Amino acid sequence: MPLPPFEAVPNFSEGRDEKKIGRIANSVRSVPGVRILGLHSDPDHNRSVLTFAGEEEPLLHASVALARACAVEIDLSAQKGEHPRMGSLDVLPFVPLGDATLEDAARLARRVGEEIGALGFCVYLYEAAATAPHRRNLADIRRGGYEGIASRIDDPLWKPDYGPQKLDPRLGAVAVGARPFLIAFNAYLDTDNVEIARAIARRVRERDGGLPGVKALGLMVGGKAQVSMNLTDLEKTSMPVALEAIRAAAREHGAQVESTELVGLAPLEAILQTARYYLSLRELKMEHVLESGLWGVEDS
Amino acid sequence: MPLPPFEAVPNFSEGRDEKKIGRIANSVRSVPGVRILGLHSDPDHNRSVLTFAGEEEPLLHASVALARACAVEIDLSAQKGEHPRMGSLDVLPFVPLGDATLEDAARLARRVGEEIGALGFCVYLYEAAATAPHRRNLADIRRGGYEGIASRIDDPLWKPDYGPQKLDPRLGAVAVGARPFLIAFNAYLDTDNVEIARAIARRVRERDGGLPGVKALGLMVGGKAQVSMNLTDLEKTSMPVALEAIRAAAREHGAQVESTELVGLAPLEAILQTARYYLSLRELKMEHVLESGLWGVEDS
Repeated sequence: MPLPPFEAVPNFSEGRDEKKIGRIANSVRSVPGVRILGLHSDPDHNRSVLTFAGEEEPLLHASVALARACAVEIDLSAQKGEHPRMGSLDVLPFVPLGDATLEDAARLARRVGEEIGALGFCVYLYEAAATAPHRRNLADIRRGGYEGIASRIDDPLWKPDYGPQKLDPRLGAVAVGARPFLIAFNAYLDTDNVEIARAIARRVRERDGGLPGVKALGLMVGGKAQVSMNLTDLEKTSMPVALEAIRAAAREHGAQVESTELVGLAPLEAILQTARYYLSLRELKMEHVLESGLWGVEDS
Repeated sequence: MPLPPFEAVPNFSEGRDEKKIGRIANSVRSVPGVRILGLHSDPDHNRSVLTFAGEEEPLLHASVALARACAVEIDLSAQKGEHPRMGSLDVLPFVPLGDATLEDAARLARRVGEEIGALGFCVYLYEAAATAPHRRNLADIRRGGYEGIASRIDDPLWKPDYGPQKLDPRLGAVAVGARPFLIAFNAYLDTDNVEIARAIARRVRERDGGLPGVKALGLMVGGKAQVSMNLTDLEKTSMPVALEAIRAAAREHGAQVESTELVGLAPLEAILQTARYYLSLRELKMEHVLESGLWGVEDS
């Protein structure tokens, strides 16, 4: 039961009209070989996130179908929402799963970028697919949203990688990229002192000498201090190891982790790691999970 | 992605000849609608355990096909092994999964018992399918193995429920029953003092006023004291709750849990419970596991 090689996690600028959202999702669902794993719509941000997975060719076709459906269903010039949107299809990252590499995902992103550009979107490649170091970071591409891009597009440093060299106001610009798989895992503290969350984040994140594969920020969310983490390499730092580091650092500040949350999906292996760690299990593999046999094994 | 209603966990008296074992497993595999979840053969006991799941009708057909294959492949009168065997197909429990009840599983056991009896096996119904209180316990039916049953079969209390009233020496007797799903979960201590394991088992098991849904015994296994548990109701007592009780009781005896093992399969929900418990997760459902979407959802 191998994972498919790639996951795509597009964000598009419609989070309110269920019929439009349904038609956009159906454009992907109707491509053979593509599995939709999740769809989350946020009416405040007027934005939806779709997750789908499959082999390279089905994902290419599904991505083009998605861009076409966004072009039909969404008029960016009439769109309102809290999120600084830049395109009707706004961002389209490809993530390697299973045996695929980040470079495989970047190649897929470039192929998709070229085809979506031909539909009339200004396409910027980012992260592992970026064509220049100053264009790796999504936040730098998105700065100022649609209007920011409009103001920069004639600067040779910000020329789109594919598509027209002038923004179509209905379509806008889309960032197409490749990034590693990550788990978004947040810990809420029993304090409203965000400085404690920031100090803990600095202690645990790789950038400041902490745990490998851990990115972390201290934030205020819903009146609680939150350590917001991305875990990018579960073999180096698993969820329990990251959390125990946060719990220990919190204790030094007289605080405690009150609860945690997982944003989006986690691979089963991350959950099995957690059970092995805390239960001191000698062995726990996918085959020991009842449902994996029911769902995944054709013949064993 | 609902679970199928039933799981069957037959034991048959061949654990050495891989070709015979393969043909017996294939008799089940070839029935449409049946999923084989596991096959474990033990050459010392000369015995194999097969796990398969499905709806009622496919499981009925697969069980009859299995009994027929055991009748063809195994001559019990020539069979040797450490286990006190009573039949070529030896024991066949049905376990309700998903929405099925124990009574549904008992009904299936009775239907299967009748059909297998017609093949020439002496059939004893046990546990939730038993026809009398003194025949509920598998150990009481099995007492003395084949020879014990041969000595009792003319006693009206031990008349078979189905099949001939005299043992066929090639086939023997089979116990067909229904029991609740259980997780077999064992904790190894850092001591060779089995009395500590026994004291801990008494402390945590339901029978002696401990945790609901927990059966436990203290054993010596591989030179270590082991608390061997069956967890029969995960909603009442989950793996982490059972283990933390054992860890606390062990500390009172100056011992520690060195490692644990899961024997057989656990439902994904048991693993998710564990992750929620130790990570203080606000929410973790099946849908948050990447693979559940890949394997189980046709359309979502």
